Amino acid sequence: MNYGIVLKLTGKLLLLEALVMVLPLGISLVYGQKDAVAFIISIACTALFGFILSRFSNKKTQIKIRDSLAIVSLVWILYSLFGSLPFLFSGSINSLVDAFFETVSGFTTTGSTILTDIESLPKGILFWRSLTIWLGGMGILVFTVAVFPALGMGGYQIFKAESPGPTTEKIAPKIQDTARILYTTYFGITLLEIILLLLGGMNLFDALIHSFGTVGTGGYSNRNLSIGAYNSTYINLVIAVFMVLSGINFSLYYSLFKGRWKDILQNSELRLYLGIIAVSVILIAVDINQHVFRNIFKSLEQSFFQVGSIISTTGYSTVDFDKWSTFSKGILFTLMFVGGCAGSTSGSIKNIRILVIFKMIGREFKKTIHPKAVVPIKVGTRTLPQDTVASISSFVMLFIIIFVIGTLLVSLEGVDLVTAATATAATLGNIGPGLGMVGPSCNFAFFSSGTKLILSALMLLGRLELFTLILLFSRRTWTDEV
Amino acid sequence: MNYGIVLKLTGKLLLLEALVMVLPLGISLVYGQKDAVAFIISIACTALFGFILSRFSNKKTQIKIRDSLAIVSLVWILYSLFGSLPFLFSGSINSLVDAFFETVSGFTTTGSTILTDIESLPKGILFWRSLTIWLGGMGILVFTVAVFPALGMGGYQIFKAESPGPTTEKIAPKIQDTARILYTTYFGITLLEIILLLLGGMNLFDALIHSFGTVGTGGYSNRNLSIGAYNSTYINLVIAVFMVLSGINFSLYYSLFKGRWKDILQNSELRLYLGIIAVSVILIAVDINQHVFRNIFKSLEQSFFQVGSIISTTGYSTVDFDKWSTFSKGILFTLMFVGGCAGSTSGSIKNIRILVIFKMIGREFKKTIHPKAVVPIKVGTRTLPQDTVASISSFVMLFIIIFVIGTLLVSLEGVDLVTAATATAATLGNIGPGLGMVGPSCNFAFFSSGTKLILSALMLLGRLELFTLILLFSRRTWTDEV
Repeated sequence: MNYGIVLKLTGKLLLLEALVMVLPLGISLVYGQKDAVAFIISIACTALFGFILSRFSNKKTQIKIRDSLAIVSLVWILYSLFGSLPFLFSGSINSLVDAFFETVSGFTTTGSTILTDIESLPKGILFWRSLTIWLGGMGILVFTVAVFPALGMGGYQIFKAESPGPTTEKIAPKIQDTARILYTTYFGITLLEIILLLLGGMNLFDALIHSFGTVGTGGYSNRNLSIGAYNSTYINLVIAVFMVLSGINFSLYYSLFKGRWKDILQNSELRLYLGIIAVSVILIAVDINQHVFRNIFKSLEQSFFQVGSIISTTGYSTVDFDKWSTFSKGILFTLMFVGGCAGSTSGSIKNIRILVIFKMIGREFKKTIHPKAVVPIKVGTRTLPQDTVASISSFVMLFIIIFVIGTLLVSLEGVDLVTAATATAATLGNIGPGLGMVGPSCNFAFFSSGTKLILSALMLLGRLELFTLILLFSRRTWTDEV
Repeated sequence: MNYGIVLKLTGKLLLLEALVMVLPLGISLVYGQKDAVAFIISIACTALFGFILSRFSNKKTQIKIRDSLAIVSLVWILYSLFGSLPFLFSGSINSLVDAFFETVSGFTTTGSTILTDIESLPKGILFWRSLTIWLGGMGILVFTVAVFPALGMGGYQIFKAESPGPTTEKIAPKIQDTARILYTTYFGITLLEIILLLLGGMNLFDALIHSFGTVGTGGYSNRNLSIGAYNSTYINLVIAVFMVLSGINFSLYYSLFKGRWKDILQNSELRLYLGIIAVSVILIAVDINQHVFRNIFKSLEQSFFQVGSIISTTGYSTVDFDKWSTFSKGILFTLMFVGGCAGSTSGSIKNIRILVIFKMIGREFKKTIHPKAVVPIKVGTRTLPQDTVASISSFVMLFIIIFVIGTLLVSLEGVDLVTAATATAATLGNIGPGLGMVGPSCNFAFFSSGTKLILSALMLLGRLELFTLILLFSRRTWTDEV
């Protein structure tokens, strides 16, 4: 492990966090609220610690795979620790564990909250809370699409499970160019949503909060009733469409910009994603039309919003879908394990992996009848190497195993099985709300500190694609003989 | 497809079923009950249909893979159809769907029941019901351990997922020898359990019923309270031990008989199976000691019984474990997806596949740090081919996908998520009872006919290792161009 470079880069990134905290400080000053002091102290602490780390000497310049693993994991953990300072210093959240949970939930773009009365918080804090989502979303995009592939085979390997399909295409020859294209796109989509929400009559502050929450697929709102507070079909549809858009591979927006329509239309992951959305929206709409709304347009609107919210792993809600039938809840619970596309800000397993799993199963049928047949697995026109296929199925299995262990640990709280299972799936998949006692009208406040830390770990595990974070805590990663 | 040989062999096996029905007829006559007539008519129908099928001419003698697939699937379906006749003719079950469900549940060694008052049934019917389990267990043993491997690479491929480990060893040079060793072992274990239960004061009829249910890992009882009716620690322990023993690869009993201790001690699937049992028993015992029994011996006894019952996919119960804490129920629910060892009468995913999945995930960690490393997956001393590993993960994924689809279909009944999920897992994994409305003190009677047929299909899917049955209903299996 090249400790020097790991600490130096982590320090530099913490300095960046301190810089970004100036934005909520500005908001706080503009609205003349007393949380400004909290931000000033937080900025000072973060900057000081970042500065110390950034002074570490860096003898070797080469970054190895384990160094990148360490940097990514450390950045997410330290960002969450320092990011929780404004909550604590402003008195918005009193417990360290609660503040850490809330900040991890933001930076991992999960959106699960321990707050019971969101509307009582000062504006600077609300802004910072939603900004963590927006930063976390951009961070994961830049790391997975720009930085790691550019590190060569090594760094690329970390997120290699996402490699099939167009994600691995270097969308610009150099890392800086790729990153610039990504954040321009990210800015552009956010700006477009802000404008559309303003046109729908939402005020600027709320439009910023909800655009951050949507494009980062996190789902923090400044309203206790989430999007349901606006009671507007226009706002529901705008946010629903942008949630779905934010779950799409961002390199496809570059293809769109370049007029490469064929790339978009022939993208098999996108087709699967939209196909799953279409089928789920119809099934739930028919079900809730019969049991809840008795109005097909209303049912389609609510179904589209909720499906888009869960599959993109955003987690906004317009109604309390925990009151829907078991069938509709079952579909939403299933979608928690699907997620959006690789190279997006969404979490969970992601469609490209689901696609490869389907193809693996299809191949198995062929091989049962023709044992000696050689059946390659193709995504689009590319044949996947056996190693990539094995890697993808290992990821999915590990995801399920962590889900099971998480559910058992959460069940020690004495909650029912549905609450335990959906709290685990909602955090591991970076979604936000679950069902039962963690349903959309509830929150995660009632859990013990131990469970909140477990759920925080699950959010980090999900965001960092499981293997990254687990390896950070493996002794073998830190010893040179590996 | 070689229709001639498929129909001819299926017919011959139906004649065997007719012959076996003479046993419950004998019981009926011995006890002088009026269900004897029902058996006589059932025997006549089954024998007639079997005779007609067995007359099909058999021009080609070669059995291809798709022929074996068709024979196995057809045998299980037709055995269940004709096996339900005694229930119908005796008036014990009035609906055709219910009778089919109960018989499929027996032949697939599931043990889920639609009967609300088991003790009111005549003795011949009770005996037949438990005998279907015992026959089903022997059938799957002979097919998977003796017949298919002996058919050469082709037939062997059908259950190739179970091939790693000692299952694939031809435990005797010829198919007849293997089959004879298997049924001698099967008879021997059954006989030993009958004797031990008689020594515990159980009457002969009950001892037969429960030994059939245990060794076949099905779990039909003739008592409404299942094993709880005897309220005896001795009987609980005998049945618990035999449930665990019946989940072990039967070829290991041959090793035991031959004094090959090393084979047994070094069998990694057996170690995993016993390890999972030990950990689960301790975790549940601690939990129920605290919340239910407040007596560690009682807690260990109940925990061991329930863990053994679920992991071996038997499904007997001594207490209503649906009343236990979410944590204990969560562990039992997880065990529903584990099952016993390959080459046993148990169902579900099975330990050998779980073992390979663990090893796949371990390899992935190594490969994340060392992308170019070649890490083979070994079970014992054998390195598994990539194809076998892919086949195993495809099986597990398909199992989970079928579980999800099954749960959604069952949820259309309007039951809660836990009931829908555990009813699906309990039938697909050939276990028996689930949780909630299908818990150990309840039954499957309240479901609609449609859902009962779906659950019957899940039992068959699980028993025939998914791919076998699905391929039977694939058009491509039946056309010659495949």
